[in-house]
Amino acid sequence: MRIALGVEYDGSTYFGWQSQPTVPNLQDTMQAALDGIAGEPISILAAGRTDAGVHALEQIVHFDTNIERPLTAWVRGCNALLPESIAVLWAHPVPEGFHARFSAQARSYQYVLINRPSRSAVHHGKVGWFHAPLDVEQMREAAQYLLGEHDFSAFRSSECQAKTPIKNLAQFDIWKQGDTIIFDLTADAFLHHMVRNIVGCMVYVGKGKHPPQWMKAVLESLNRNQAAPTFAPDGLYLRRITYDAKWGLPQAV
Amino acid sequence: MRIALGVEYDGSTYFGWQSQPTVPNLQDTMQAALDGIAGEPISILAAGRTDAGVHALEQIVHFDTNIERPLTAWVRGCNALLPESIAVLWAHPVPEGFHARFSAQARSYQYVLINRPSRSAVHHGKVGWFHAPLDVEQMREAAQYLLGEHDFSAFRSSECQAKTPIKNLAQFDIWKQGDTIIFDLTADAFLHHMVRNIVGCMVYVGKGKHPPQWMKAVLESLNRNQAAPTFAPDGLYLRRITYDAKWGLPQAV
Repeated sequence: MRIALGVEYDGSTYFGWQSQPTVPNLQDTMQAALDGIAGEPISILAAGRTDAGVHALEQIVHFDTNIERPLTAWVRGCNALLPESIAVLWAHPVPEGFHARFSAQARSYQYVLINRPSRSAVHHGKVGWFHAPLDVEQMREAAQYLLGEHDFSAFRSSECQAKTPIKNLAQFDIWKQGDTIIFDLTADAFLHHMVRNIVGCMVYVGKGKHPPQWMKAVLESLNRNQAAPTFAPDGLYLRRITYDAKWGLPQAV
Repeated sequence: MRIALGVEYDGSTYFGWQSQPTVPNLQDTMQAALDGIAGEPISILAAGRTDAGVHALEQIVHFDTNIERPLTAWVRGCNALLPESIAVLWAHPVPEGFHARFSAQARSYQYVLINRPSRSAVHHGKVGWFHAPLDVEQMREAAQYLLGEHDFSAFRSSECQAKTPIKNLAQFDIWKQGDTIIFDLTADAFLHHMVRNIVGCMVYVGKGKHPPQWMKAVLESLNRNQAAPTFAPDGLYLRRITYDAKWGLPQAV
């Protein structure tokens, strides 16, 4: 039997999603809780392997097991065993044709940036911060140059293992709530550090260091050295993975 | 010279505001940073002494010093010395007639409650949680019974040191954003545990255990045993202290 889970986590105390022998990571922590429910080792596969310090509002994972448990055991039972930084939101049985990563049609990430003179104390570790005022309209104009299918090599980390740097950015919204600026991006897939590198460039545009058209020049350069430094992971959230409705996943949005 | 500060903090790792010899607390942590800027011991006084686990969006404190420093030193210098869970938002010189606690005209607290089947992972320690659906309209009706000047003894902890249990609740708004319910209260002053005890009762009304009119009966009983258990501190924020405009404090709202 294959089961899909929706999972929320605060990534600030983990060295990323990926299983690693010596450091705290989300995959091993989740597998330990699932082992506790199943009474046998469970191996999970995630839609997106988030980096160190990156959070998820709804990561999707799947695992196979022959152990019969009520769905509530995979949710409430797991949550009783998990640390408070991880919560299973729902469990749903899926056919073997479903694969958390390969069935995904699109990924949405959100970057939350506090824009005010003082850093945030209440949200430390959960938001990025920039001290000088940022012009949202200028950043919105810059975002238009990135929409559609492009070679995003200029925003790709040297450690990226993607087969191709060509991705389709379907949506890029930017809005302000009080002193918080939200960057919300949806693409078929993202390159390593792509969102954080784009946010770094957006801050350059927002503070007036470069005009919006500069974003087009960076994109077309295909050169990582033309872009701004990678922004902090603190404000980055894997917000949603989109699947075909036929799987019937009980996702939030 | 007397200086007022606006301070934001995440109270989840502190045993409350109050200075205590053996446990982490906000007052001692802040005084240590101010000592570092002044080069001499600084003693601060807060508008409201928040409990263990309670946060502040804008606590107001004042201190006296003969040491001359630019105002930015009390803000940026302090923030460089403070842990990431505390941030000074602004510093403002005030006349000696100003007193953070006694000049305060009103206090506003906010309680943030996640209302969904699973606990919150991303916001753990920063929100309260109730798993079953709550009826906001019923809670709003119950809130009306508490508005105005009353003896709030039914919502007062046995450790409360207030001179009188009679307080004037000037405003009590409740609204929902997604799966989050916000309770926002303003009064001349609050009794110990008053907001958390009121929220506990609100949850009883919201889940249908009691009708809205029950809130009136609890209030009039003047008996703490009639009210619900104290709700968790995690979701409680000291949001604002209101002062006469004559002091010219650069507060956010």
